[in-house]
Amino acid sequence: MKTLQDYIDKLNSLHFQEMYNRDFFLTWEKSDDAIEAVFTLADALRYMREHNISTRVFESGLGISLFRDNSTRTRFSFASACNLLGLEVQDLDEGKSQIAHGETVRETANMISFMADVIGIRDDMYIGKGNKYMHDVVDAVTQGHADGILEQKPTLVNLQCDIDHPTQSMADMLHIIHEFGGVENLKGKKLAMTWAYSPSYGKPLSVPQGVIGLMTRFGMDVILAHPEGYEVFPEVEAIASENAKKSGGSFTKTNSMSEAFRDADIVYPKSWAPFAAMEKRTNLYAKGDQAGIDALEKDLLAQNAEHQDWACTEEMMSLTKDGKALYLHCLPADISGVSCDKGEVDASVFDRYRNPLYKQASYKPYIIAAMIFLAKFADPVDILKKLEKKGTPRIFE
Amino acid sequence: MKTLQDYIDKLNSLHFQEMYNRDFFLTWEKSDDAIEAVFTLADALRYMREHNISTRVFESGLGISLFRDNSTRTRFSFASACNLLGLEVQDLDEGKSQIAHGETVRETANMISFMADVIGIRDDMYIGKGNKYMHDVVDAVTQGHADGILEQKPTLVNLQCDIDHPTQSMADMLHIIHEFGGVENLKGKKLAMTWAYSPSYGKPLSVPQGVIGLMTRFGMDVILAHPEGYEVFPEVEAIASENAKKSGGSFTKTNSMSEAFRDADIVYPKSWAPFAAMEKRTNLYAKGDQAGIDALEKDLLAQNAEHQDWACTEEMMSLTKDGKALYLHCLPADISGVSCDKGEVDASVFDRYRNPLYKQASYKPYIIAAMIFLAKFADPVDILKKLEKKGTPRIFE
Amino acid sequence: MKTLQDYIDKLNSLHFQEMYNRDFFLTWEKSDDAIEAVFTLADALRYMREHNISTRVFESGLGISLFRDNSTRTRFSFASACNLLGLEVQDLDEGKSQIAHGETVRETANMISFMADVIGIRDDMYIGKGNKYMHDVVDAVTQGHADGILEQKPTLVNLQCDIDHPTQSMADMLHIIHEFGGVENLKGKKLAMTWAYSPSYGKPLSVPQGVIGLMTRFGMDVILAHPEGYEVFPEVEAIASENAKKSGGSFTKTNSMSEAFRDADIVYPKSWAPFAAMEKRTNLYAKGDQAGIDALEKDLLAQNAEHQDWACTEEMMSLTKDGKALYLHCLPADISGVSCDKGEVDASVFDRYRNPLYKQASYKPYIIAAMIFLAKFADPVDILKKLEKKGTPRIFE
Repeated sequence: MKTLQDYIDKLNSLHFQEMYNRDFFLTWEKSDDAIEAVFTLADALRYMREHNISTRVFESGLGISLFRDNSTRTRFSFASACNLLGLEVQDLDEGKSQIAHGETVRETANMISFMADVIGIRDDMYIGKGNKYMHDVVDAVTQGHADGILEQKPTLVNLQCDIDHPTQSMADMLHIIHEFGGVENLKGKKLAMTWAYSPSYGKPLSVPQGVIGLMTRFGMDVILAHPEGYEVFPEVEAIASENAKKSGGSFTKTNSMSEAFRDADIVYPKSWAPFAAMEKRTNLYAKGDQAGIDALEKDLLAQNAEHQDWACTEEMMSLTKDGKALYLHCLPADISGVSCDKGEVDASVFDRYRNPLYKQASYKPYIIAAMIFLAKFADPVDILKKLEKKGTPRIFE
Repeated sequence: MKTLQDYIDKLNSLHFQEMYNRDFFLTWEKSDDAIEAVFTLADALRYMREHNISTRVFESGLGISLFRDNSTRTRFSFASACNLLGLEVQDLDEGKSQIAHGETVRETANMISFMADVIGIRDDMYIGKGNKYMHDVVDAVTQGHADGILEQKPTLVNLQCDIDHPTQSMADMLHIIHEFGGVENLKGKKLAMTWAYSPSYGKPLSVPQGVIGLMTRFGMDVILAHPEGYEVFPEVEAIASENAKKSGGSFTKTNSMSEAFRDADIVYPKSWAPFAAMEKRTNLYAKGDQAGIDALEKDLLAQNAEHQDWACTEEMMSLTKDGKALYLHCLPADISGVSCDKGEVDASVFDRYRNPLYKQASYKPYIIAAMIFLAKFADPVDILKKLEKKGTPRIFE
Repeated sequence: MKTLQDYIDKLNSLHFQEMYNRDFFLTWEKSDDAIEAVFTLADALRYMREHNISTRVFESGLGISLFRDNSTRTRFSFASACNLLGLEVQDLDEGKSQIAHGETVRETANMISFMADVIGIRDDMYIGKGNKYMHDVVDAVTQGHADGILEQKPTLVNLQCDIDHPTQSMADMLHIIHEFGGVENLKGKKLAMTWAYSPSYGKPLSVPQGVIGLMTRFGMDVILAHPEGYEVFPEVEAIASENAKKSGGSFTKTNSMSEAFRDADIVYPKSWAPFAAMEKRTNLYAKGDQAGIDALEKDLLAQNAEHQDWACTEEMMSLTKDGKALYLHCLPADISGVSCDKGEVDASVFDRYRNPLYKQASYKPYIIAAMIFLAKFADPVDILKKLEKKGTPRIFE
């Protein structure tokens, strides 16, 4: 069992000043030390909560959330993270008018930020839009702060964009680290990020992209598997390759699910939409071409239906290392015979892994809290020490 | 005027360990001491707030609310109670997809609970469903806590189910206790829980059931009155009878409103739907039989219209003890000539009792806060003492 | 640079006891000293936040918000103000049933206020309704407090009614004071509150009314300009005239935009609806005469379109004092060529003033917080001193 001092020692060995006063867009924009600092601080915050030590560092302040896509678990993770640090969540509900450009973004971003310490945004629906929008918001509040309008620059946490889903992939990764007893045990482990069939086509690419963009940094052999036509962003594949080279691991691709599963230590089978189709949809949407969108959807569903064999069955699981690979999913999963007729995973597989799956999800609030914490304090270690010394109980005692 | 020490002394005389780490589903599942502890602690918390002593026992933590039926007063009561203790309310909005079963309940319950200390649920629309759902949620988070997924087990507060409305009936009861100067003065008092006509049929049965299930525990003569066909759950009637026997009071039934009102010390005239019809509706709903539902509604409205004479008129009130029975309602009431043509109560009666009615409602936030407090602290008396000693003012001074 | 002591000294020189335990409906119901106290305290709270001194004066308590019209910036300003003082915002969502009268207002107001310290309401759509409704709410909770139902009387903050928009006009005014280096420098300055064309007719009158009702109190020459037919409430014009007389300034009217702009030090060009038409609309609405409303809207749009030349162009700006008048707007503005074809202001003018415009908006949270603070503490200066002495950091350090 670790102590808070262990986390403090670890943090002291890392260089993560780049996190201070900055934002979290994409994991591959952050150094290895910064990524490790997020993991370490997330564990430290969890340790403190488990030991009833309050980590309320804000006496007042708002955490603004903006969800441009439905969300339950990320919404609650963000709310939990803000609350853990003392920030009150205020949701920005854009109503029907979701397309906010140029002048409006700049103005709205400032108008909601007078007392905002954090802004969390999910905007994952259209290729080329979500990450761009987050940058527009950050540019606006950075300018607003420089111009003396905002007393503080709120830090942005990317709660899923069109490119990456960093709070998800980092929660996933922290789960892997704990399951394998430390990042030092991951060298040479095989992780299969594979496409899987789901009747609801059109799921964001940001999960597989986030996974290959992050998991390739730890010396693992990461393999990306999907049917032809379900490619992800080539830019992210390039990053994965480069990461793998640097970390001493590998990044490969295949169109065979069983090849990916064979001898895998970790499997992450999950549906996503074809990148090219999503790009087409974005353009049709921009043109307001509803007939085009409908036709595209029909094509996609037909294409999708051809790959019902891409499922995480018991047979497929038996191919993995000792038949016992760690099964991951960002949830909710499409479970065959439970949430749909044929889906991403067999019910018996899902059942067996329910506990680790829920644990995997449980890291997200702490990952988000750690991102905020590192952006807000110049010397986070000093703050941790002072919080420990102060020792205010989270629940009165 | 009591002091905090009086409440502490009272609590010290009671055995209510069963409340710790548990949930609040139905009042009759709790011992007399546990019920009295809730009343006593509710009064103590109110005393402290009135004396500007903060009862903020949580530095951080969420109170999750889930309302599957409209609510203003219970929603605000829950929010007030959570806030009083330091919890931030986070509402779970299920949107249109309200039917969540099996796997989904288990998963959702865990996903929202990573930092949840309390979950408050209203689910009162369908017979056999609401209480069941609450148990499913509690089972899920209990398992999640046992499996190490949740660091704490959130406590459930039933904010109205198909069977009971415990925060309502206990607020009602605490009001009665205060109006009569103590629970010791209630022996032999007559309380009439009676049906009353309202143009909007279909109101939940949980209020009358909650009242007869709780008020029979204090030695009163409780009489349940309704037209034929408006029976409540036989199981709850059985509980009321048993309670009455144990407490030295009585539980009787009648189909005459005036018989119920005659010499009553307390009257609670209120509309509700016939149990059998509600059960039929639940089945039709499950089958998706809209035509059947429409036909049933038509029948019910016709049946309902036959009983417009069941109203709390001045004439009816004059039958009560000295014409001055304490008039109760969970609000909002259907007031004849005000909110509808003909309703549950005469405007002049309602006007005369407005003050006590609002006071009755004012206990609900404290009842909820007390339920949470007793579930969260192994030694609530010790916590009260420490809060008093600490003496942080609620409003800075 | 001022110190907190400067603000304290200033407050000590003012008489504002009238604010304690009261509500904020209209600026002209408050004394000059009370108005100045709000400005001074707003600056003091901002100073403290900038110096990381917590102004959390509530350990618990709710701030209820009720928006009967869309709002982003006022909603966030209210949430920020409540949060700054330690209150949690709880929104009252009336759903579709917005017309709440008599009994219902009284009851709802009490039911939501058991633990409410503040109620903020926006209700600006119908002439003769909004301010009236706020008074109904205040009467209800005042009675509720007197009757022992509510332990505290929540204070009302008018977040825009049919008559005034005090948090807007006071934020505007505090901005003017800062831009001109103090209220003592405003004597003889010319402020032009002028109508401007916007394609979306029907904007509330409360902004221009709020401006002429407040800005005439500081010795300025306030001129109100609009096309014929766009008159504001005569009662508010009377107040503006009286204010001007007392303050040694002037209040005049014109139907020429250029006359208003000529040599102006401050310009506030903004669209609003004709008072008479709004009154007519209110009556048609009350009668449920949709055909009448449609016909009226058509007439208004036609009338509106005749005045497209009322725009804050570069040419118009060049008429102002040295061509450099301070340009004000409550935002969002209708910017020609940006948010609409032809609107209230040229894009180049708006761009040049964006910074001051955002600063103008930034005062609103502090104005609201100051209003609450003055209503809640008998001796606000003493509280400020104690907060400074306590010196809890807003962000842990």
